[in-house]
Amino acid sequence: MTRILLFNPNTSNDVTDLLVRVARPSLSPGSELLHVTAPRGVPYIATRAEAAIASGIVLAVLAEKEGSFDVAILAAFGDPGLGGARELMPVPVIGLAEAAMLSACMLGQRFSIVSFSRALGPWFRDCVAMHGLLDRLASIRLLDGRFASLNTVQDEKEDHLVELALAAVEEDGADVIILAGAPLAGLATRVRERIPVPVVESVVAAVKQAELLAALNPKKASAGTFRRPDPKPSLGLSPALEKLLMSKPGATQS
Amino acid sequence: MTRILLFNPNTSNDVTDLLVRVARPSLSPGSELLHVTAPRGVPYIATRAEAAIASGIVLAVLAEKEGSFDVAILAAFGDPGLGGARELMPVPVIGLAEAAMLSACMLGQRFSIVSFSRALGPWFRDCVAMHGLLDRLASIRLLDGRFASLNTVQDEKEDHLVELALAAVEEDGADVIILAGAPLAGLATRVRERIPVPVVESVVAAVKQAELLAALNPKKASAGTFRRPDPKPSLGLSPALEKLLMSKPGATQS
Amino acid sequence: MTRILLFNPNTSNDVTDLLVRVARPSLSPGSELLHVTAPRGVPYIATRAEAAIASGIVLAVLAEKEGSFDVAILAAFGDPGLGGARELMPVPVIGLAEAAMLSACMLGQRFSIVSFSRALGPWFRDCVAMHGLLDRLASIRLLDGRFASLNTVQDEKEDHLVELALAAVEEDGADVIILAGAPLAGLATRVRERIPVPVVESVVAAVKQAELLAALNPKKASAGTFRRPDPKPSLGLSPALEKLLMSKPGATQS
Amino acid sequence: MTRILLFNPNTSNDVTDLLVRVARPSLSPGSELLHVTAPRGVPYIATRAEAAIASGIVLAVLAEKEGSFDVAILAAFGDPGLGGARELMPVPVIGLAEAAMLSACMLGQRFSIVSFSRALGPWFRDCVAMHGLLDRLASIRLLDGRFASLNTVQDEKEDHLVELALAAVEEDGADVIILAGAPLAGLATRVRERIPVPVVESVVAAVKQAELLAALNPKKASAGTFRRPDPKPSLGLSPALEKLLMSKPGATQS
Amino acid sequence: MTRILLFNPNTSNDVTDLLVRVARPSLSPGSELLHVTAPRGVPYIATRAEAAIASGIVLAVLAEKEGSFDVAILAAFGDPGLGGARELMPVPVIGLAEAAMLSACMLGQRFSIVSFSRALGPWFRDCVAMHGLLDRLASIRLLDGRFASLNTVQDEKEDHLVELALAAVEEDGADVIILAGAPLAGLATRVRERIPVPVVESVVAAVKQAELLAALNPKKASAGTFRRPDPKPSLGLSPALEKLLMSKPGATQS
Amino acid sequence: MTRILLFNPNTSNDVTDLLVRVARPSLSPGSELLHVTAPRGVPYIATRAEAAIASGIVLAVLAEKEGSFDVAILAAFGDPGLGGARELMPVPVIGLAEAAMLSACMLGQRFSIVSFSRALGPWFRDCVAMHGLLDRLASIRLLDGRFASLNTVQDEKEDHLVELALAAVEEDGADVIILAGAPLAGLATRVRERIPVPVVESVVAAVKQAELLAALNPKKASAGTFRRPDPKPSLGLSPALEKLLMSKPGATQS
Repeated sequence: MTRILLFNPNTSNDVTDLLVRVARPSLSPGSELLHVTAPRGVPYIATRAEAAIASGIVLAVLAEKEGSFDVAILAAFGDPGLGGARELMPVPVIGLAEAAMLSACMLGQRFSIVSFSRALGPWFRDCVAMHGLLDRLASIRLLDGRFASLNTVQDEKEDHLVELALAAVEEDGADVIILAGAPLAGLATRVRERIPVPVVESVVAAVKQAELLAALNPKKASAGTFRRPDPKPSLGLSPALEKLLMSKPGATQS
Repeated sequence: MTRILLFNPNTSNDVTDLLVRVARPSLSPGSELLHVTAPRGVPYIATRAEAAIASGIVLAVLAEKEGSFDVAILAAFGDPGLGGARELMPVPVIGLAEAAMLSACMLGQRFSIVSFSRALGPWFRDCVAMHGLLDRLASIRLLDGRFASLNTVQDEKEDHLVELALAAVEEDGADVIILAGAPLAGLATRVRERIPVPVVESVVAAVKQAELLAALNPKKASAGTFRRPDPKPSLGLSPALEKLLMSKPGATQS
Repeated sequence: MTRILLFNPNTSNDVTDLLVRVARPSLSPGSELLHVTAPRGVPYIATRAEAAIASGIVLAVLAEKEGSFDVAILAAFGDPGLGGARELMPVPVIGLAEAAMLSACMLGQRFSIVSFSRALGPWFRDCVAMHGLLDRLASIRLLDGRFASLNTVQDEKEDHLVELALAAVEEDGADVIILAGAPLAGLATRVRERIPVPVVESVVAAVKQAELLAALNPKKASAGTFRRPDPKPSLGLSPALEKLLMSKPGATQS
Repeated sequence: MTRILLFNPNTSNDVTDLLVRVARPSLSPGSELLHVTAPRGVPYIATRAEAAIASGIVLAVLAEKEGSFDVAILAAFGDPGLGGARELMPVPVIGLAEAAMLSACMLGQRFSIVSFSRALGPWFRDCVAMHGLLDRLASIRLLDGRFASLNTVQDEKEDHLVELALAAVEEDGADVIILAGAPLAGLATRVRERIPVPVVESVVAAVKQAELLAALNPKKASAGTFRRPDPKPSLGLSPALEKLLMSKPGATQS
Repeated sequence: MTRILLFNPNTSNDVTDLLVRVARPSLSPGSELLHVTAPRGVPYIATRAEAAIASGIVLAVLAEKEGSFDVAILAAFGDPGLGGARELMPVPVIGLAEAAMLSACMLGQRFSIVSFSRALGPWFRDCVAMHGLLDRLASIRLLDGRFASLNTVQDEKEDHLVELALAAVEEDGADVIILAGAPLAGLATRVRERIPVPVVESVVAAVKQAELLAALNPKKASAGTFRRPDPKPSLGLSPALEKLLMSKPGATQS
Repeated sequence: MTRILLFNPNTSNDVTDLLVRVARPSLSPGSELLHVTAPRGVPYIATRAEAAIASGIVLAVLAEKEGSFDVAILAAFGDPGLGGARELMPVPVIGLAEAAMLSACMLGQRFSIVSFSRALGPWFRDCVAMHGLLDRLASIRLLDGRFASLNTVQDEKEDHLVELALAAVEEDGADVIILAGAPLAGLATRVRERIPVPVVESVVAAVKQAELLAALNPKKASAGTFRRPDPKPSLGLSPALEKLLMSKPGATQS
């Protein structure tokens, strides 16, 4: 049985519930879905500053949960703290953006990212650059203006988001659309018939990529840039994170 | 039930058998594996010229099989004819190299491709460039010298290939190793303990990416650069391919 | 006497005739123009799938004609099968797009490609990328809508094509215009006075680049990525191509 | 009077003292140097995970100190949390790596980064990429092996570091050398005569770039990707950071 | 005392006077400002041809003044002859564009260059490329149409230039604005309140970067690509330049 | 009759004679070869500083000769002043490096530049970058050490240059070799049999590219970045150059 940890780095439990609802039907028989919500931070990470704040919290939560999962999904599009998590954890960790973008690459030459808030733009772009995928990016298209709540934004803005997707196809040359951001989970299925190119549902992509990684069953790197760092003392961090930083490479891996 | 067509664009049936043997254990319960071997071409595609020859044959075989599969794997590392197949087919098509490389991206920053014949170098490099992944490539390392047969090359050269992988990690900065080429299918599992970074088994990666694409259930693009081309007459091609080229977009899609 | 083979990979004899008519006046006294039309394929290659089909046919025709020419021009803008042909042939082979684009580089910083069918876009872009010239590309501008016939498209659409060229100069920053596609051969001369930057006639560029290569008289590479591949058996290919693939490097070169 | 905050994101007070000692002589008469050491984290940030942990702590400290400085220097080569700090703070924030690299650009075409621990490599490379300066990077050269203590590493390893610098010049084509990492502060002056190209002292570069930013007296962006984010509630963060995240753009700016 | 030579490669003395007026208030107590105007060339360098003409004159003037300054500023945005000057001179030389662009990099992710004449576009773009900063460039926006005189262009066009800056922020994604060109010296201060992102005053940036280089006190490279070339005879050049070309590396350095 | 001006921007008449001797046999019947040697400058341009000096002299000589030629070759590998010349002249101007590199692109994927003096490296690299061809460059390999004279360097160093070429093929992945620099004119023909990949003779490439440009008969751009600049007064330049700068676009063109 593969234990997949769906980890929402935002503090919004409703969004976690939504992610779980969308993720569950795509699980293979051999997979089990666990979930956790960030206990600290912001309800919805949207900026570089908020992503910086989330990065350390991501590591603290993963340190806390270490040993209870076989692969983790960082379920915030933008993948805060992904590099550090991949370095520190003995098991694979993937990002929601990473999973969606790599999956989109198999469905066309260039993808567009469509989401509900202009504030997300700089962080999303940094994320695409971090993954070395700028050449595959057609555009990032974001809604301007306010929305009533995270829980209902996908209903409230459905038509506007479809319009952005159509503009991305017609004006920016997108072959594939990614509806980005945890609060839009599940929307891809609803709007797919209104968009003339494939639409990637990020949560499904993440679950299946997690299963792929479990199937590949990669050993933890003891060389290369994602080898576990040497043990290091620390000051004022959470006990679990402090312990993980001090542990010897290999010691935490079963 | 998802019907996955494992299509070997090489003419070597033994290699097809090997691919099927390695692929089968990684299938999910809901997946069925079909296979086909190229009826024309060369036993093992290795050069730009051989890839050019294979490209048209790939389309002819896929046209012949159209309707009998839900997703196809082009099982030659180098992905001959992939773009054309993706454009023409109503269902997803992925390449063995593409699947392996995108999977490797989730396990480290840069991967190295290791294989058994120097002749493969230029084609492999073109393939990485085609997928826009040169920034993620640490190196391509290839064995020099002859080998006894395709069927036994992975046994004969196992130690040499491990040495190349170690050199890629130590000298080229590889975070991940891809043992590339259909004749090396299954080798990753055997040598993983001798290599200090994750080793991607391409065939497993391809099967799981095929299942991912089936789960995403993308519609066939009617816009963007992978929309079906308009109907076109042709001269001297196989009946199935001629018919497919003449069909109206959407007509072949269930 | 330099024997230049003008090879039309499309099946349309009328287009071949046009190409020959435009090419002939630019021949130097020491050059002789031969020509051949693809016996199989499509009347006009426009998509990735059609280019994939053409690639193998290109090699089969060149294998058939081997020994009868000193340099070959692949006269379809997009250069299908060029890499394989360059690898396999003992004499130089150039593409129509390659010749036009490299020539354009000497007349300005960035060029735009203008042609008559939207379907050509993805293939043209792949071609520019293959030649490593994306930094020199200002834009690809293509007509939308149908045209009466390949033979008359340059007359029918002359004004529209000039408008696209003007837009490329004014809006995209083009220093040079390439009117791309074999059916537009000869148009550059007719419209040059209506366009405020240099216009490259691809066929003339290709003839003169062919003469340049003949003057350089390069030896066939026995090293590097365009060395002749080792002899290889094949299945079901044309006798000439099968024989060429089986021949020893150097054996076919005078 | 310009108040420059020298902020050491590492927890090592000795390193802070060293930074201050090296920085002070380069201050202009109109500048005042303040300093602060991270109260939580690790003694010396070296990996992606440690940088992720530091990112949030950097913002918390800057929020705490907000109003008491006119420009801040993040004095860890690697610039943890820089983007978020630049976004959130009403005054300029620069990184030690950023200041050193941009200064090096004025002294040659390509620079090499030389430091004392192999563990720093991946993070340093990510940092160069984040600043868009990979084309200006000749190499990163790092010492292997252990050192006695952070406080004395520059003395202990002086000769080895000079050897790395010489190798960077001779083998990698470096026009300029950056001795990177806060524990090497002051070393550049000592070894400059032994290295045949300019050596950048990062701390001096940072102080003078801070003065430059003060002289430019830039207004806080209210548009673009570094505009202050909208007010946002948060959970479990430090009071100062929570308050800053909830403040209206402009409210904190005098 | 640091002697900073502000060198105007244009022949317009009025522009030199303006540059000096804007530069002087930003000088630190330990700095002294010298100035010189090109005795030959054009009143305002704007094109590749004019920059080519200026390049040699720049070296002749610097050779003439050699020994009288500690750092030089090439005060024409576009930095004509900068590479040659940096190679030949025993002391640091920086360009106005270089100083402004590197300073802008610390204030945002991407900058736009705004100036008063369309003719400047190609040269400015070449300059950004020469410095390897194209990834940090949001756009170059230039006024079309004539202006009354260089001396008054910043007054005459103030409103139009602000409009361009606003368009660069809103449409091109600029985080920072550079008002480029010596005749616009001083304008940044006047219009900063009308532009919602930081505006870089190039002259101030250049003076402070000059002081930074003086503080770094770099030795003249005797290796790398900016080492002094070997002595070389010449024909028909100015006596000072001829002498400098013939001098031994190191001989001119105090 | 096409009048081709072979313009040696070096002051060495012997090199001009050599260039003419190598160029003449490759002329087509309809071409006439004129030549001119720079009256001022250095015997052999090798550095950024010398190229900067040459740039203005190139324009002065071309202005002097304007009207007497139909296409000009700047016969110094490195192409000093090429952009300015292309902008200012009513007829095409090409560079020796440009012609050689673009020709090499048709003979392989990547080329190496081999020459006789280490001093040439930085300038050559800048030249490749200026032409946007860094992706096609395998390496630049240069001899270290002194040579007796420019006139005999190709004889004296023949074996060493062949060794560099072989190393470029074997170690750097070069598909094509360019023996660069006017003093090496003619060497390619002599050593071609000793090098296992095509060797480009730059002078022949330049003559044939000049004939190609004449055949294309491009009009002078009145738009784009190579349009003639507006008339401009100047100070202290040669009468011909002053007159050309003051002339109206179009006035000098027949």
